[in-house]
Amino acid sequence: MAQDGIVQDLMDQFGRLPGIGPKSAQRIAYHLLEADNEQLDSLSRVVSEVKARTKFCTVCGNIAELDLCPICLDDERDATMICVVEEWKDVVAMERMHDFRGLYHVLGGSLSPIDGIGPDNLRIRELLARLADEGVKELIFATDPNLEGEATASYIARLVADTDLVVTKLASGLPVGGDLEYADEITLGRAFEGRRAISGGV
Amino acid sequence: MAQDGIVQDLMDQFGRLPGIGPKSAQRIAYHLLEADNEQLDSLSRVVSEVKARTKFCTVCGNIAELDLCPICLDDERDATMICVVEEWKDVVAMERMHDFRGLYHVLGGSLSPIDGIGPDNLRIRELLARLADEGVKELIFATDPNLEGEATASYIARLVADTDLVVTKLASGLPVGGDLEYADEITLGRAFEGRRAISGGV
Repeated sequence: MAQDGIVQDLMDQFGRLPGIGPKSAQRIAYHLLEADNEQLDSLSRVVSEVKARTKFCTVCGNIAELDLCPICLDDERDATMICVVEEWKDVVAMERMHDFRGLYHVLGGSLSPIDGIGPDNLRIRELLARLADEGVKELIFATDPNLEGEATASYIARLVADTDLVVTKLASGLPVGGDLEYADEITLGRAFEGRRAISGGV
Repeated sequence: MAQDGIVQDLMDQFGRLPGIGPKSAQRIAYHLLEADNEQLDSLSRVVSEVKARTKFCTVCGNIAELDLCPICLDDERDATMICVVEEWKDVVAMERMHDFRGLYHVLGGSLSPIDGIGPDNLRIRELLARLADEGVKELIFATDPNLEGEATASYIARLVADTDLVVTKLASGLPVGGDLEYADEITLGRAFEGRRAISGGV
């Protein structure tokens, strides 16, 4: 054994994280052994505190350090639009786009009878309560583009069918930077179905 | 801002580690937010303790939790052979081979006049003391196969030239699994120079 207990332990701990193989874990361990104490302390601290310091926003279900998430707290967001997503990670992805200035609602998953997840297991009741209260005009579904995600969107859309809400969902189609010859037939079908006039006329 | 302060902080901390890009840092942060407390605690603890709990073996200079490293403490190692390496990480690499059962001596670097590193900056005096005391019969140089590493090996070899020590160094040649057509000319030259009879005749 060339490695000491704690160095091996360090490698094992990092090797358990997603995307870190044994070689990377070794490289990280070597790096940390030579890092300054400040870096070690802040890394150690953030890992130990992150769970205790995060909870879910009581309004939208996004991750938050306070009772409300930064988005719900932001007065400049457009409260007439709610984007419905499955998980708080999807909020992060949507925010990276920088185009949407409305609010979110995190369902906490998607309908999946096979896994025993029905409407009562998702934050659908909370969504309906918000729709009743908050003067929302548009509901945008950004659920995952798969069977469960689309079923969830359709289910909720039916629940609000007799209101004045505009209900939309994200477009399906070819991913930007993708390659047509490798597109699967379902994606291609959606892209064809959703084809749009090129401005200037086709 | 969709990400909370501490979640972003977690990503930043991991993103600073070698080999972890922003995407991987995000993936790890998401993983840790869903990990159990035990995993978070042990990761946090090992990061904060690793430096305080490691020092260098007073005999060979390898990394150690006690005054001596596990290799120097191991009675079953062959004390007649000392393998000289530049860094403790090289000990880890040698031990992975499982073939060497002797002891090590970590120099702490290689001679490099351009960086101001001379013989007094390396643990050469300590090595000579061990050679005088310990009944060593063979000295094996496993310094890096570059200019500095080879100069360091030659320098020390000259210092012990008038003793009975057998002095060897690791063979240079083609790396196993490599491709002849991509071998550089120096490596190829070394491999040619060090060619060996194939058992059963050439």
